[in-house]
Amino acid sequence: MSKQFDVLVVGGGPGGYVAAIRAAQLGFKTACCESNPYADPKGEPRLGGTCLNVGCIPSKALLHTSHVFEEAAHGFEAQGISVGTPKIDVAKMIGRKNGIVDQLTGGIKGLFKKNKVTQLNGHGSFVKQVADGWEMKVGEETVVAKQVIVATGSKARHLEGIPVDNKLVCDNVGALDIDAVPKKLAIIGAGVIGLEMGSVWRRLGADVTILEAMPEFLAAADQDIAKEAFKLLTKQGLKINLGVKIGDVKVGKKSVSLAYTDKDGAEQKLDADRLIVSVGRVPNTDGLNAAAVGLKLNERGMIEVDDHCRTNLPGVWAVGDVVRGPMLAHKAMEEAVMVAEVMAGQAGHCNFDTVPWIIYTAPEIAWVGKTEQQLKAEGVAYKAGKIPFAFNGRAMGMAAPEGFVKMLADAKTDRILGVHIIGASASELVAEAVVTMEFGGASEDLARICHGHPTMSEAVHEAALACDKRPLHA
Amino acid sequence: MSKQFDVLVVGGGPGGYVAAIRAAQLGFKTACCESNPYADPKGEPRLGGTCLNVGCIPSKALLHTSHVFEEAAHGFEAQGISVGTPKIDVAKMIGRKNGIVDQLTGGIKGLFKKNKVTQLNGHGSFVKQVADGWEMKVGEETVVAKQVIVATGSKARHLEGIPVDNKLVCDNVGALDIDAVPKKLAIIGAGVIGLEMGSVWRRLGADVTILEAMPEFLAAADQDIAKEAFKLLTKQGLKINLGVKIGDVKVGKKSVSLAYTDKDGAEQKLDADRLIVSVGRVPNTDGLNAAAVGLKLNERGMIEVDDHCRTNLPGVWAVGDVVRGPMLAHKAMEEAVMVAEVMAGQAGHCNFDTVPWIIYTAPEIAWVGKTEQQLKAEGVAYKAGKIPFAFNGRAMGMAAPEGFVKMLADAKTDRILGVHIIGASASELVAEAVVTMEFGGASEDLARICHGHPTMSEAVHEAALACDKRPLHA
Repeated sequence: MSKQFDVLVVGGGPGGYVAAIRAAQLGFKTACCESNPYADPKGEPRLGGTCLNVGCIPSKALLHTSHVFEEAAHGFEAQGISVGTPKIDVAKMIGRKNGIVDQLTGGIKGLFKKNKVTQLNGHGSFVKQVADGWEMKVGEETVVAKQVIVATGSKARHLEGIPVDNKLVCDNVGALDIDAVPKKLAIIGAGVIGLEMGSVWRRLGADVTILEAMPEFLAAADQDIAKEAFKLLTKQGLKINLGVKIGDVKVGKKSVSLAYTDKDGAEQKLDADRLIVSVGRVPNTDGLNAAAVGLKLNERGMIEVDDHCRTNLPGVWAVGDVVRGPMLAHKAMEEAVMVAEVMAGQAGHCNFDTVPWIIYTAPEIAWVGKTEQQLKAEGVAYKAGKIPFAFNGRAMGMAAPEGFVKMLADAKTDRILGVHIIGASASELVAEAVVTMEFGGASEDLARICHGHPTMSEAVHEAALACDKRPLHA
Repeated sequence: MSKQFDVLVVGGGPGGYVAAIRAAQLGFKTACCESNPYADPKGEPRLGGTCLNVGCIPSKALLHTSHVFEEAAHGFEAQGISVGTPKIDVAKMIGRKNGIVDQLTGGIKGLFKKNKVTQLNGHGSFVKQVADGWEMKVGEETVVAKQVIVATGSKARHLEGIPVDNKLVCDNVGALDIDAVPKKLAIIGAGVIGLEMGSVWRRLGADVTILEAMPEFLAAADQDIAKEAFKLLTKQGLKINLGVKIGDVKVGKKSVSLAYTDKDGAEQKLDADRLIVSVGRVPNTDGLNAAAVGLKLNERGMIEVDDHCRTNLPGVWAVGDVVRGPMLAHKAMEEAVMVAEVMAGQAGHCNFDTVPWIIYTAPEIAWVGKTEQQLKAEGVAYKAGKIPFAFNGRAMGMAAPEGFVKMLADAKTDRILGVHIIGASASELVAEAVVTMEFGGASEDLARICHGHPTMSEAVHEAALACDKRPLHA
């Protein structure tokens, strides 16, 4: 006799586990299957997907440790604090990171229990449509579910000829587990992961070179922000080479040798004792048996869905990295809640226009809405307000006066169209911008809302005032 | 011939300098007079008032330095960072703080130039009403202004029998300039200044005892927050004694001896090598000549004003600490902008219900709106959502899992009535709560707004979900 569920969620990452919890809260008999290799002490796959196991969460732990390490090495003296030359115990740093991952992935197990979600250990795949929904295989087990939510996420894109062993040549998985500070670290790809991991190891003492194929730096970001980020990150010591073409990569026993053509067409060589390949991620539908049941993918391998994450198959939904849109955990969670609520007959909805983006470099980078170059391309008339943190008392007190807030508002209606922040705490500052944009707010609204003093958020306030050319502190 | 202005602002603190800048932006010929003793290198009084010179800004600088000092001493090891025992150079720490004060107060001078505000050096006082406004004395000079904005701020309340010399016995001024870490520091008053300054010197090694007359800790805060703060601050080593009655205080040459009765009525003695008196602040109308022109004060010495900060005298306004309401810089700035805009015929308005409160301890404390005890006292039916940061991946990564977010919403309408936060970055997290409350938002609104992952702000999101008993991560 097969197991019967109202809802089977395939994949236990942020999209999957949130979909499962919300579906269960709404009264569905729900299971969630997971088959990743990140086993917990009992040998069960850990919940939380890439994000919790080998993504957002562990990287933030390493970013914090390496950030305070760097502060101790270079920022303390000006404040009157003297310490000896700081030393890093990489194993201990990685151990703390692993402890956080243990605790949070275990926490989701607890949330499953609390919300009565059944965790199934095993790879989920479609077998066939049946009268009452879908017959699925989970590992060796047969499961029948009235509705299926596919949340199989994404996997690191690799490059031909550069085999990833996650020791010498790493993707996101190995980059989080490097066991000693590399002397020379090469990174292919100056995206979020490349910049974050490059920052971690540079702060700890590695000589880091990043090779990026695109001629533009952070093309998705507002170019004012990208320019400032490039300037600051380069000043910190990250060597970022744009517009390169990767040639032969020779992986030795203890080192890697990369040939590449630089932006000027000159042949270059880079030797490193580690290589991180961070050239984006691809949707993961491995072993899902999508083709056999006719689940439609697009030409880039994503499962095709409508605005409510319905696939072409009845009762089959898909959310997160495996569908269109930015590969961001919080976007997946939004879709997950929407799908569960729509299944329950509620009016679920996702506003993709107000999904924030965050890069956890120092300073942090965060934005929501349209960039200036997007508005220009779309022919939208806009006004801009830009306020540096150099005028901000809290930023100065925190010894973090770098960066700025840039707000873009409709020239006619004053509605906020985008807010772009580079600065300490940008990840948190962006929240009020998201909220204001969700309320359809204008720059005048934010300009008239009281902001605590002294806070970094005052720069958001001033940027709103600056949209009307009446900043008080700039 | 006396100098003629449309507007004279008396006092160059946050209320005064913002009023002057905004008035000048709106086309008024504006002057601002200041006479404080915090002279710049040219001997001119520094702008910025208590806040920039001897309040919010310098305290944040010392709080940051002492916070990272404590992290280095106690928080690094668990992360795998080893440093020698950190040492503090107090003079250098104070020097950095002074540099920030220099830069920001000088910045306001620059803003005055940019906005064409005339800075007058001298104490402002009323002489008499004249045909075209008010005749004022500024130092030895006579100034006639059509309208006057009084922004004379507040001064530290002192206690009878405890003379403040700002060396051995300090108020906020001296507390920011202590030249060596005291062995034993006594503080009278467990308010914002007492807790912040107590935290600074405790982190740097002082044995700090705080004596507070009130039996309740942080009575203005939500009592859940106050309880958590008391627990965490006490655990850090602050000795906080509530419900005490101060007796004889003997000030010697190098030490202070305090007798007090503790909450159980027992006689106690406390010896310290420094004493900070932080028992609140009183409105400052010294030398304003208020009585002579009939400017009405209330029984507590505040200038009486209406909702738009009009005093009883025609063409005379008052803003900031010298009027009713919380003594907060950002409240003063809100009033300042309102007054300038109302003077210009615009529809200025202050929403005092959404002025945030912040205490910069570690963890930080911030809130906006009503506390649970206020709602109970008012008989308002409410629901609450409370989420600890212990479940928050960013907080864990930052090694700051203490505290929680508590949201209070109307039981019937779901409108958010208060948001109370204790945790790292609370000062910034409160901004989205303020914005939502300004839009009259419900907990459901925040629950449906995407929050970046991983951020501390996700706890605000979850607290909103918890108001409806459907948190996803708790």
